[in-house]
Amino acid sequence: MEVGWWLGRPALEGLRSTAVSKLTDVPKRILIGRALRSDRLGETLLPKRVALPVFASDPLSSVAYAPGEVLLVLSIAGLSAYHFSPWIAAAVVVLMFTVVASYRQNVHAYPSGGGDYEVANTNLGPKAGLTVASALLVDYVLTVAVSISSGIENLGSAVPFVVEHKVACAIGVIVLLTLMNLRGVKESGTLFAIPTYVFVAGVFTMIAWGAFRGVVLGDDMRAPTADFEIKPEHPGLAGFALVFLLLRAFSSGCAALTGVEAISNGVPAFRKPKSRNAATTLAMMGLFAVTMFCGIIGLAMATDVRMAENPAKDLIHNGAPLGPDYVQDPVISQVAEAVFGHGSVLFMILAAATALVLFLAANTAYNGFPLLGSILAQDRYLPRQLHTRGDRLAFSNGIVLLAGAAGLLVWIYGADSTRLIQLYIVGVFVSFTLSQIGMVRHWNRLLTTEKEPAKRRHMIRSRAINTFGAFFTGMVLVVVLVTKFTHGAWVALLGMAIFYATMTAIRKHYDRVAEEIAAPEAPSDDSVRPSRVHSVVLISKIHRPTLRALGYAKLMRSDTLEALSVNVDPAETKALRAEWERRGIDVPLKVLDSPYREVTRPVIEYVKSLRNESPRDVVSVIIPEYVVGHWYEHLLHNQSALRLKGRLLFTPGVMVTSVPYQLQSSEVAKKRARKRQEWTAPGSVRRGPAERTKDSSTHT
Amino acid sequence: MEVGWWLGRPALEGLRSTAVSKLTDVPKRILIGRALRSDRLGETLLPKRVALPVFASDPLSSVAYAPGEVLLVLSIAGLSAYHFSPWIAAAVVVLMFTVVASYRQNVHAYPSGGGDYEVANTNLGPKAGLTVASALLVDYVLTVAVSISSGIENLGSAVPFVVEHKVACAIGVIVLLTLMNLRGVKESGTLFAIPTYVFVAGVFTMIAWGAFRGVVLGDDMRAPTADFEIKPEHPGLAGFALVFLLLRAFSSGCAALTGVEAISNGVPAFRKPKSRNAATTLAMMGLFAVTMFCGIIGLAMATDVRMAENPAKDLIHNGAPLGPDYVQDPVISQVAEAVFGHGSVLFMILAAATALVLFLAANTAYNGFPLLGSILAQDRYLPRQLHTRGDRLAFSNGIVLLAGAAGLLVWIYGADSTRLIQLYIVGVFVSFTLSQIGMVRHWNRLLTTEKEPAKRRHMIRSRAINTFGAFFTGMVLVVVLVTKFTHGAWVALLGMAIFYATMTAIRKHYDRVAEEIAAPEAPSDDSVRPSRVHSVVLISKIHRPTLRALGYAKLMRSDTLEALSVNVDPAETKALRAEWERRGIDVPLKVLDSPYREVTRPVIEYVKSLRNESPRDVVSVIIPEYVVGHWYEHLLHNQSALRLKGRLLFTPGVMVTSVPYQLQSSEVAKKRARKRQEWTAPGSVRRGPAERTKDSSTHT
Repeated sequence: MEVGWWLGRPALEGLRSTAVSKLTDVPKRILIGRALRSDRLGETLLPKRVALPVFASDPLSSVAYAPGEVLLVLSIAGLSAYHFSPWIAAAVVVLMFTVVASYRQNVHAYPSGGGDYEVANTNLGPKAGLTVASALLVDYVLTVAVSISSGIENLGSAVPFVVEHKVACAIGVIVLLTLMNLRGVKESGTLFAIPTYVFVAGVFTMIAWGAFRGVVLGDDMRAPTADFEIKPEHPGLAGFALVFLLLRAFSSGCAALTGVEAISNGVPAFRKPKSRNAATTLAMMGLFAVTMFCGIIGLAMATDVRMAENPAKDLIHNGAPLGPDYVQDPVISQVAEAVFGHGSVLFMILAAATALVLFLAANTAYNGFPLLGSILAQDRYLPRQLHTRGDRLAFSNGIVLLAGAAGLLVWIYGADSTRLIQLYIVGVFVSFTLSQIGMVRHWNRLLTTEKEPAKRRHMIRSRAINTFGAFFTGMVLVVVLVTKFTHGAWVALLGMAIFYATMTAIRKHYDRVAEEIAAPEAPSDDSVRPSRVHSVVLISKIHRPTLRALGYAKLMRSDTLEALSVNVDPAETKALRAEWERRGIDVPLKVLDSPYREVTRPVIEYVKSLRNESPRDVVSVIIPEYVVGHWYEHLLHNQSALRLKGRLLFTPGVMVTSVPYQLQSSEVAKKRARKRQEWTAPGSVRRGPAERTKDSSTHT
Repeated sequence: MEVGWWLGRPALEGLRSTAVSKLTDVPKRILIGRALRSDRLGETLLPKRVALPVFASDPLSSVAYAPGEVLLVLSIAGLSAYHFSPWIAAAVVVLMFTVVASYRQNVHAYPSGGGDYEVANTNLGPKAGLTVASALLVDYVLTVAVSISSGIENLGSAVPFVVEHKVACAIGVIVLLTLMNLRGVKESGTLFAIPTYVFVAGVFTMIAWGAFRGVVLGDDMRAPTADFEIKPEHPGLAGFALVFLLLRAFSSGCAALTGVEAISNGVPAFRKPKSRNAATTLAMMGLFAVTMFCGIIGLAMATDVRMAENPAKDLIHNGAPLGPDYVQDPVISQVAEAVFGHGSVLFMILAAATALVLFLAANTAYNGFPLLGSILAQDRYLPRQLHTRGDRLAFSNGIVLLAGAAGLLVWIYGADSTRLIQLYIVGVFVSFTLSQIGMVRHWNRLLTTEKEPAKRRHMIRSRAINTFGAFFTGMVLVVVLVTKFTHGAWVALLGMAIFYATMTAIRKHYDRVAEEIAAPEAPSDDSVRPSRVHSVVLISKIHRPTLRALGYAKLMRSDTLEALSVNVDPAETKALRAEWERRGIDVPLKVLDSPYREVTRPVIEYVKSLRNESPRDVVSVIIPEYVVGHWYEHLLHNQSALRLKGRLLFTPGVMVTSVPYQLQSSEVAKKRARKRQEWTAPGSVRRGPAERTKDSSTHT
């Protein structure tokens, strides 16, 4: 027995959830297996003590590299410049307070968790919004690249092997995180809480113990690099040059602020009173960050940590440079070594916690990236499909894109956090500045309407804060651009430009289409109802699928109904005719000739001819289809049908109906599809529960 | 205005002819541009003088390498063994005559051009048929690999650069041929005629002129390698070992027979009387081949050509081996050099013609491979789609597969024809032997019924010929297997096994499905007609596509009709409701809730609930779809619809109707599809005209 040449199957729509997704998924699935059945997190809300680690792992972790960067830059002017570091630290602290204060306003003003994008979009218009969005997207990529590189360096201070294979290890971690997130692993609060708190506790212990040893015991704690001298690249730097250098050091220090805005995106995830709790958490986070930042800088001074931009040639030991083999440990681990002693348990724990918290920070980007994507999709800057919450494919693609970009950067920059940080801060401050300016506008708008004095006073206060924030962050942005442009900031800007251009193009396309298909008010040719339907059932042989199709076709009482077959093989056709008569099927059977054993062309031409006979009619082509389960089965079935349907849909005045016949094997695909639906999108925790739409199911 | 989240588009059926085919085609198209508009060749028939070159380029070209192989093998036993070469030549000639004689019987018995596969299949059953098919498929791959490698070597004898970059050049030629054939270049007879005749004429001139110079003028013609000595690997080989060596030399010589069967596939392409003309052409080809083969061997003897398996170490000049830099020219070009003189015009022409004819031989495989594929598809050993004649995609995939495999072999074996030939001959003789055995069966069958003495006598004669053919070729097959197995024949056998296994699996699958869907005689649940149709039109917004869908839906007077929307965005939903009422659309609008902004799940669940309420009903889901032109547009539209349709088709008792709305951009895809239809499949010439099916378009 013979299987029809054109018997349809769920065409590739089916594939969308089976084979086509395969094109992207199969490799993934091979690696990561099926998505875990994990409960939807929609209903779980975060208490502050959990929210803090969930949202703060990113900003807190940045104290692991920020202080070092400051010293690095200063070292250019030689050891003497180190004594500027407290001032720079102070500047960073002020900035941190400003930013935190400003974002506390955002949190209150936008409890929806729109974040910088929403703020800029609503108050400064789409262009600003899109700029912020691009900046954030670039930032997410860099968060992954920087955090992981730095994490590897911290781990390396305890496990030499890791530094020796820096790039490989970094990319390994990226792959791991990617697989985890693709698999839709549940982002549990505790998962974050433990290492974050261990890290914070570790740093505080270090600071306290260090202070105690230094001040009370009067120990002389010496960092491993304490005995090195620094050969300044520009000795005796003074005047403008020095100022410039200090500014550069400062903007490096600003790396400590990355990720502060995270909370403002996550307000809905907080327990009630959401805004207040979010604000408090924000404050706590700021406090932690600055304390740790200053503490580490202070200890670095006290223990005479020496860092140089090019340790190989600029760090001198016993008169000779250390040479290329020397690996410069991050400042935090040097300090820890000085305070706790090399190889001590506490030192090890801290190193591990630091690395872990940095990896968690990277993981937050894996959540933020697709979430922002879905918001952008809502505004049609990205494909609509990203809009549906927790769409597995959309998220998967987002995650893969993110991982790819980050991996590329890590590879290009040799997993060197110092070099990567040069790219990092631009985006952050672009969004900081724009969102603060947006807030100012926001308050202005409200003030025009608001009459109540108490409220007005409050608003004016908020506006003042945001104004200062906008001003300060704006200034920093300029500084960063000026001091870091040639050092790599241009790469970040380029990335932003690319995102911006792509998203604008997509939006343009959607708008153009929307216009094209806009429904006319006056009844036009479209709304004029065609007169009759001529139904055609495609038949290759008589078997269950075709019989079912015929059965269904009869139900749709169309004006005329006929069965259509193409004669690709005279013998088969004769057999078909014979059986048709034997079974006495009460539908006329029409057979088209096809000398070249084609299927598509004759059918298309026949349908067209029908249309020409009576242009006001609609032709309804009914195609029995197989539903199969395995992607490779698609290669064996219905290919002609797929092409035929494709062509038919290009012919005006035609409707194409698929009457599916589920083969046993289709069960497989069904299960797969179900599995996919049970998958939890990364970042659901920080996103909070789905807004229950009031508008319930009803009839109009 | 906003574009619906689930608005369908021609799903991937459309893609089959647009984006999906892109996956394979786009790179191709970038390289090769659109397929040329070339007239269908169906109606053109070949006169003998054209048929000869078209079909004989493969077998004739093999004399370019076969003689050399004989000498190579003999050299193992040292120069003394060379004097066996005439005997081996004689054996090859006898074999050639046998094979030709046998195939003349095939041609008469099977004018349909079934070829070895059909013969074996009909007379020895599917297993034998499939074995032959696998053998032929492997052969096609090797034809490409061997012919091109040898062609490069011949070209190299005139143009040193080519040999120096052997592999690169060989692969270059493969790519070129692939592009040509993908582009569907018209395989014109003349294209083949000229180089083939130049080649034949050249070789004959060489033989004649050589004989004349040698015999009449008594010139002492010396091949460039004449002064070399051969260091035998096994000096003084005798007894069984010698016999074995001679057999090996003989089976190498059998390479001259490859491609003889080609004509038996192409009978329909001949002018009437097809069979007679084909038989005559076959005889001519055989005659040419043996003359050239013997002539070249003879001249090689006369001019003292020296060839060794490892020329680097086994060829001695002035006591020292030639070393790795020495390139061993093919025997034909060495002889040509001796006869015409080095660098002479005739020498150049012959070298060029040889190379060209070898490339044409390779090209015949590009035609044969997909053609055999379509025959196998007809018997459901390969995907049905390959069956439809000149299906661009099917052919393209076949061609790419062939080229890939051949390229791989060329790369692995360093484009060394000598090493590739070890793999070559197995397949040929497998199909020779099986088809001859099949013919014997064929005659036996006929003889049981045939009464007329004249006819009987004729049949008995034919049977005798085929019996001898079967016996002889079978013997050779054994010899080849024994002498060449370790030299590479096992690779060919492995390849055959893989093809065999795959094709059996595919056939099994088709049979299983065919059984599963077989229409029951007694009216079963399938033929029982469901009672009513409940139509659901999916609506996201009100625009032309949805209005059209509604209009069409109303035409299909189904028992109930409702519009269905999913509330992913309360604001949008409210707007939709409002406009629905404002426009006074007379179809009830139902809105499903979707807290997670999903589309698929709520709809599926709703449809299922409908089914549960009244299981005997059919649900018809009508989806307005966009038809877009560019593949990237697919990424921006209807993704949700694709998934939804996919899921719907897995739900029993559902029919899914697409109401396409052609966007302006769809014109592009339409044109593309048309272009693709105008493409001519490679090999149409040798395939002959399409059998005009009598059974014309009628109603039953």
